[in-house]
Amino acid sequence: MKINRYRQDGDISYTLGLTVTLEMLAAAPELVKRIFVSSLLEASDNLKQLYELAKQHKIAIEQNDKAFNILSPKVNCQVIGEFSKIFKRLDEKSSHVLLVNPSEAGHVGTILRSSAAFGVPNVAIVRPAADVYAPKAVRGSMGAFFNVNFEYFDSIEDYRKRFANHTLYAFMLGAKNILKNAQLKAPYSLVFGNEATGLPEEFASFCEPVRIPHSKNIDSLSLPIAASIAIYAATTNNWN
Amino acid sequence: MKINRYRQDGDISYTLGLTVTLEMLAAAPELVKRIFVSSLLEASDNLKQLYELAKQHKIAIEQNDKAFNILSPKVNCQVIGEFSKIFKRLDEKSSHVLLVNPSEAGHVGTILRSSAAFGVPNVAIVRPAADVYAPKAVRGSMGAFFNVNFEYFDSIEDYRKRFANHTLYAFMLGAKNILKNAQLKAPYSLVFGNEATGLPEEFASFCEPVRIPHSKNIDSLSLPIAASIAIYAATTNNWN
Repeated sequence: MKINRYRQDGDISYTLGLTVTLEMLAAAPELVKRIFVSSLLEASDNLKQLYELAKQHKIAIEQNDKAFNILSPKVNCQVIGEFSKIFKRLDEKSSHVLLVNPSEAGHVGTILRSSAAFGVPNVAIVRPAADVYAPKAVRGSMGAFFNVNFEYFDSIEDYRKRFANHTLYAFMLGAKNILKNAQLKAPYSLVFGNEATGLPEEFASFCEPVRIPHSKNIDSLSLPIAASIAIYAATTNNWN
Repeated sequence: MKINRYRQDGDISYTLGLTVTLEMLAAAPELVKRIFVSSLLEASDNLKQLYELAKQHKIAIEQNDKAFNILSPKVNCQVIGEFSKIFKRLDEKSSHVLLVNPSEAGHVGTILRSSAAFGVPNVAIVRPAADVYAPKAVRGSMGAFFNVNFEYFDSIEDYRKRFANHTLYAFMLGAKNILKNAQLKAPYSLVFGNEATGLPEEFASFCEPVRIPHSKNIDSLSLPIAASIAIYAATTNNWN
C-alpha cells in the first residue's frame, strides 16, 4: 500500500510517536489502518503493549523506514499510526469550548487536552481555522484527540443556529465582567478568538463578555493558556 | 563587531523579532547593545517606534542580512536585538514560582509570562534546567523575560536555605489536597517538576503536596498549563 504525505483534504492522518499511537489504540482502535515502526526502534514495555494491542485488534505492523522520511521528516519518532479521519458531532446538552478562527494546530491540540482534562470534551471550531486532524495537532493533544468530540462550523451563525440554547461567554480583553465572578449558566460555550486578533467586537452583542484579569506587564495571555484557565475555572467545582 | 551565535555560557543573547525587541527597549533599554534589521523589513508604525526608541537610548541599528543567517536560521524574523545577560536575585518577601529541572526553554518562557501576568514575577529554577536566556525562551516569554526576576539554583537545598520562610506547595499527581482547597500561606513557592518525570517523591517531606484534579482521560496536564492554572488560582483574589 502506498504511503502518502498528510493532506488536509484527504481522509487519513497519522499519529507520530509511540505514546500517541498507544493512546489511539486504547481509545479508538477501530480507526487504525496500520502501524509503521522504524528499524531504530528499541524494545520497551510500551512497545510490547503496542504489539499486543495491534494483535488483539488485527492491525498490521510494518517495519518501514521510508514511511518516516515521508510522514515525519521533522519530528523524531519511531512509531507512526495511520488512521481514518472521523467526523464527530457535538453533544447538544453539554457545555462546549468554541474556538473562532484559531490559526495554530498545536494550540488547538493543547486546548483539546485541557477540555478532556476538565470534562468539557466538546469543542467547536469556526472556520477559517487550523486543521485539528493534522499530525502536529494530534500529537499536541497527547491523545485527547481520540477522547474529545470536535466539530467544524463554516460560520458562527451556523453554530448559533444548532445550539440556540447555549449561553455564549466570550473572552474579550475589554469585558467588564471577570471570570471569577461569572455565574456560568449551563449549557454554556466558552468562546475564544484568534491568537493575534481575538474576537470581533460584534460578539459582545450576542455573547456575555468575560475577561481574565491580569497585570499590565503583558498584553494578553496566549490562547491555550487563557482557554485552559477558563476551562479549569468553569469546572473546578465538579472535581475533587 | 563580530556576530556570534548564541552560547549558553556566553554573556550575550538575542531577541528574535520586532515585537520582543520593542518590549526589551521599553522594559530594559540599558541591556541593549545593538539592533539588526533585515533588508526585507517593511515600514510600519512599530518599526517607526523601534527607530525612535533606539535613537532616544543611543542604540545603533545596523542593516545586516548576515546576522539573520547566523542568529536566526529557523525563526522567520526581520529584527534582532543583541543584549547583555543580566543575573537577577529573587525578592525574599514575595511569593515565588519554583521550577525544578524544567527541560524545555519554551515552557519556561510561557511560565515567565504567566508569572508576569498574575503578579508573581519571581521565578526560581533548579538545575539541571533549560536555559532561560536562550533566544527561544526569551521569544516564548513574549517580553515577560524583561519584567520577571528569575534566578538559577544548583540544588533545591540551596533554594531552601535562602528562602527558609517560604511555604513550598509542591504540585504532585498523588497529592491528597487539591488546589481549590489549598489555603496558601504567603510568602509561598508554587513548585513544579520536570515535564516527563514530575517532582521526586521526597519533596512530599518538606513541601505541602497539592494537585490540580482532572479526568482520567489524560495522564497529566502539561507543565506550562498546570503552572499557569496554579498561578492564576493562587492570585485570583488580587485581581479585579
